Parts: sequence; structure tokens; C-alpha cells
Amino acid sequence: MKTKMIRVDAKKLYDFAVAALKKGGVPEENAKITAEKLIATDLRGTDTHGVRNLGGYIRGGLRLGFINANPKLKITSQAPSVATFEGDRGLGFIVGHHAMTDAIRRAETTGAGFVAVQNSSHFGAAACYSMMALEHEMIGIAVTNGPPRMVAPGSSTPAVGTNPLSVAVPAGKKPPFVLDMSTTVTADGKIAIAKGEGKLIPEGLAIDKEGNPITDPAKALLMTGEGGALPLGGTPEHGVYKGFGLGVLVDILSSVLSGAPAGVLWAKTREQGGWYHADHFFGALRIESFFPVEKFKKSMDDMIGAFEAFSKLPGVEKIYVAGGREAETMRDREANGIPLRDFMLQDLKNLAAELEIEFTLC
Amino acid sequence: MKTKMIRVDAKKLYDFAVAALKKGGVPEENAKITAEKLIATDLRGTDTHGVRNLGGYIRGGLRLGFINANPKLKITSQAPSVATFEGDRGLGFIVGHHAMTDAIRRAETTGAGFVAVQNSSHFGAAACYSMMALEHEMIGIAVTNGPPRMVAPGSSTPAVGTNPLSVAVPAGKKPPFVLDMSTTVTADGKIAIAKGEGKLIPEGLAIDKEGNPITDPAKALLMTGEGGALPLGGTPEHGVYKGFGLGVLVDILSSVLSGAPAGVLWAKTREQGGWYHADHFFGALRIESFFPVEKFKKSMDDMIGAFEAFSKLPGVEKIYVAGGREAETMRDREANGIPLRDFMLQDLKNLAAELEIEFTLC
Repeated sequence: MKTKMIRVDAKKLYDFAVAALKKGGVPEENAKITAEKLIATDLRGTDTHGVRNLGGYIRGGLRLGFINANPKLKITSQAPSVATFEGDRGLGFIVGHHAMTDAIRRAETTGAGFVAVQNSSHFGAAACYSMMALEHEMIGIAVTNGPPRMVAPGSSTPAVGTNPLSVAVPAGKKPPFVLDMSTTVTADGKIAIAKGEGKLIPEGLAIDKEGNPITDPAKALLMTGEGGALPLGGTPEHGVYKGFGLGVLVDILSSVLSGAPAGVLWAKTREQGGWYHADHFFGALRIESFFPVEKFKKSMDDMIGAFEAFSKLPGVEKIYVAGGREAETMRDREANGIPLRDFMLQDLKNLAAELEIEFTLC
Repeated sequence: MKTKMIRVDAKKLYDFAVAALKKGGVPEENAKITAEKLIATDLRGTDTHGVRNLGGYIRGGLRLGFINANPKLKITSQAPSVATFEGDRGLGFIVGHHAMTDAIRRAETTGAGFVAVQNSSHFGAAACYSMMALEHEMIGIAVTNGPPRMVAPGSSTPAVGTNPLSVAVPAGKKPPFVLDMSTTVTADGKIAIAKGEGKLIPEGLAIDKEGNPITDPAKALLMTGEGGALPLGGTPEHGVYKGFGLGVLVDILSSVLSGAPAGVLWAKTREQGGWYHADHFFGALRIESFFPVEKFKKSMDDMIGAFEAFSKLPGVEKIYVAGGREAETMRDREANGIPLRDFMLQDLKNLAAELEIEFTLC
């Protein structure tokens, strides 16, 4: 099965997403915040976390009432540099946007701001929030838990979600450093894309109930509660306990610190919409409080430039630092449109028909 | 070559380390702080970062004047929750101890404390500092850069150090969560131990100048500037860019944020003692500012207990969360002594002779 890619103008895609979200019950202001983050994610090439999921949010979480499109956030605890929010079962993009804004505000006055959030939902790509710090000349941090997918080493039972973490750091002339990674070897979205394209996945990504490698993406995505994604590292001798440790850390910061039960304890609520549930953790560090920001950016450029000047192994054209490839993709997609897989574009067309909104993308 | 292990009482080992450090030029108070962290590291089973390195600090860094045994730390920048320290080329254990203490002090009042440190030296295991937060009911964070060892994906040139990161989180009845990991697949210390024991290392840990896998530990440890340790993940399809991103992040927080050049830029100073140079970054988050600490600890226990109750794959006796295995090792070693490899014990005996102190270990 050959997948065709169709380029769609970013502004058109944004307008479509806003219209779909509004018709799906999201207030205009919240629809704009959400669409802006979805499109920014597609522009950066993170195809797994952009408009691909629009249908899921609208048909699933919002329509079935598992996600609150207009959450009223409450601060349940705070100190000058930290706070905990109750997320009101809110649309993750809205909850994340406001919580990260609060972390940045605290960092403006004390140098550091950290916010834990419970009772939110899927917030898209973690980089949407860490990158909010960049224009404030801060280092931004964003992590989120999710329903258990990552198996504990020594077991085939999922213990924590794919639990991504993102850290964004401004540079000068170079693109910002933006790390945005699941703590599993690979995230579900990439397996789903392999499935859509009819491809197998390599060994070392997921195991079945007996602990055997899975290469069929459809099987890797089955949520039976037995078998799941391997932690980054993959095997004991290649550091699987490191990926598991990072995954558990994300759960601790997101859920335990915010007062929610850890992901493993709400796994059984999946049928009641627990699939959409997420808790988050955000942070901001004000660079100028540590070191003059212009010198800092120059030093970032020097470091990245030194890496780029390394001799390359055969077949390698460029050495990339986190965020570098995404910045190149963004330049291309801003100029030439966002390439959408034909089956995803068809899904958006179906969504438009269901919502009775105009389909304007092709 | 068969390695013999000899059990040595922890208190005896501590007294020996204090005596050796004092004779090596370290003031008594600083010798005690350093020895305490070295022995705690051995007790937890992190054999790569304990007294094994005592000879290196004394014969190399201290004797040659590359490490300052009595550093005067200076705060070069600060805000209520953050600070930057100039480390005065200090013994890393002393610099780290005082910088982490400062981060904890800031977190007591604002909920969060973060300290970047430049111009320090090798500080042992990162967990020595993250774990300082535990008795204050805080989450502790410690990272450090080191001389370039981790190759950039697409190159065989080392870009950053093995750049460890540690996060410690208190629990209730369960042992604390203590993640302490290099961001490479494995750390040099483990390769050195394989070399000492005459064993090969598995593929996927290190590459040579041409990008081919290295299995000879002696070759993997050669510091030629070409070839080095692979980032966690190992290969592109198994997430090598994640390990590289984490390694670079550690360098940013340790060096760029503290005002030091990134590790890759001082690589050439190795012959002038740059091998000992390190910059660090420490953090503390006060749990009670987020959520009542007793409930938090109960929730940690519930999470860890849920993991431990998972069904196990064949041959697996127990599911471990980061820090769990180390807590078991500590109980054993506190009761029965710290097992030292015979060639390490011989090295300590030689050190005692060189320093003209009594050898009291066996």
C-alpha cells in the first residue's frame, strides 16, 4: 500500500482545525489556542501529534464528555516558585497553556517556576509548552503521563505511559534546542503511522504477553493490558532501566506530585474515558538570573556549531542537535505547506462531513 | 582471569578514605564530606564511583594541582530561587555538597531551588547530591558534564561527556526512587571494570573511528578523540537521538547556563588537567508546596507496590523501580561489608604505601 502525501497550506489547516473544534463544542478562544499548537506541531514535523489527532479529540473525548472543552482551573497549593493546578478534566491544550503560562510568570520574579497539574487530558506534543518559554528567554520544561503503555523491565505488564518529556532552550543564530521525546523506545503515534502505511516495525520496540518481540504494528497497538512498549534502552545490557526510570519519573512529577494517583492505578478506568486522562508537569528557568542571556545564546551557538563541524560517518550529511531537524522542516512547511498522508486527509474530510462544516483542504 | 571479592567494613573503608584524603592535602572537614559520599556510593553498589576512584583523585587531580582541595565558592548571579556558583577549580564533592545545600535552602522558602556551577571537578556519583534532598522531604536533581566521551549521532567524534543525571524522590515504607544514570548506553566505569576482569563488552556500547562496534574494553576506553560511547538508544531506530539530546541537555544546564564553555570546547585542555574539569547543575523541589508530603509518600508506595505486584517474565524474581536494587545492596553491605575486587584492594594498598599511611583494610 503506497501512501500519497498532499501538501496543505498551514493557515488553511489552522482555520479548518478552529472550525472543527468550535463545532465540536470548544469555545473560540480555546479552539484557537488548541489549533495553534496542533498546527505548530505539524509544521515542526511531529506528524504523530498534530491534526492527525483532531478527530480523536472531537469524536472521542469531547463528544463523549470525557474532556471538558472549557475547564476552570483551580490552584490547590502554591509557594512563590511552584503551584499545583486542578485541571477540571480539561482539554489538555488549554490546561497546559495556562499552567505553563503560570510557571513562566513565577520564573520572571524568582528565577524558577514549576507547576504540577492533575486531572487534565492529552495535551498533544510536549514541545508546545516547553517552547512557550523561548520568547521569554527561559528554559522550558514539559512532561506528561498517559495511560500505561511502557512495560516494566522483567514484566510484560504496562507500568507507565509513553510519558514524554520536552526541554526547550533558546539559542542565538542557531535554532533553539528542543528535545521532545517519549521515554519508550518509540511512541504509539509512530507505530500507528507504520500500521497506516502497511509497514512492519523493527524488533526492540514492543513485546507481547510472553515477552517476545512484536513487529506487527497492529498487534503492538492492542491495549490488552499485557504486552506493550519497551522503555528507552530496550534491553538490560543497553540500559532499559534508564528508560524505565525516566518514564516513572515523568509519572511521579505529573501525577504523584500533583496529588493524582499514578497512571498504573487508573489504568482500569480506561473504559470510562481514562484513555484521555493525563496529568502534567511544567517548568521554566529564567536564564538571565543565572548568566547574561546574550552570552548564553552565543555559547549555545558555539556548542551547536562545534558539533556541526564534526567529521561525518559515510552517508551522513549533517550532524543534528535536538530541534535542528524540526527547524528545517518548519521552514520548508511554512513555505510549501504541510504534507498530509492521504488516509489522514480522508479522515479530516469525513470529520468535516460529520460536523457539517466546509472541507477546505483540497 | 578470575576476580576475587573481599568484604571490607564500611566504617573501616570510610576511615581509610578520610586518612588518605587528608594525607593527599584535603582539609579534614572536606575529607570527611568526600569520604562519606564515596562510601555511601559503594554501599549502594555503584562500584564505579566509590573508593575505586580514590587513587585517581589523589594521585592525579590533587597531587598535580588540577583540583583545589579547599575551594572558596563564589555566587556570581542569583534570584530568590536560583544561583550560579564559581567553583574555584574545587574538589567536586565539596563544590557539589555546598551547591546542593544552597538549592535546598532556596527551595525551603520558595518551593524550588536551582543552582548551576562552573569550574568544578569530578564529583563522584550524581546520586550523592540528589539524595541530599530526601531528608528535607524534597525531590533532588543533580547532573554534571564531563570530558567528551559520547559521540554525536552521525559522527564518531565525542560531543559531550557520559553526562549523568540523577533524580531522587522520597517514598514512605518503600525505598526512595533514585534514578542515577549516564546518558550514554553505559558509563566508562563499567567498561573499566570489564577490562579489569578481562571480559569483552557487548556491541551497541561504543564505536571506533569508522563507526564500527567496539567489544574490547581497553579499546573503548582509549581517549583518542575519535570513537567513543554511544548515546542511550544506540541506533536511530531505537532512539539514539534521545540519549544524545539528554546528554547535550546535561551539558547545557551544567556548562552553558553556568557561564562555562560547553564540554566540547574545553576538550583540548585535557592534557592540562581538563580531564578533571566538570560543571554541575543541582535542583530541589519542596514536595509540601505542591501536595501534602505524607500523602505524597503513600502514593509513591502505592505506585511502587503496584509495579512489584506485576506478573513476572520467566527467570525474573522481582520488579525493581530505580533505587530499589541499590537499597537492597545497601542493607547487605551495611551488615556484611563492601565487597572490593582484589585488584582494587591492591590499588588501595599501594596508595597507602605511597601516602605513608597505615593500611587497615585487610
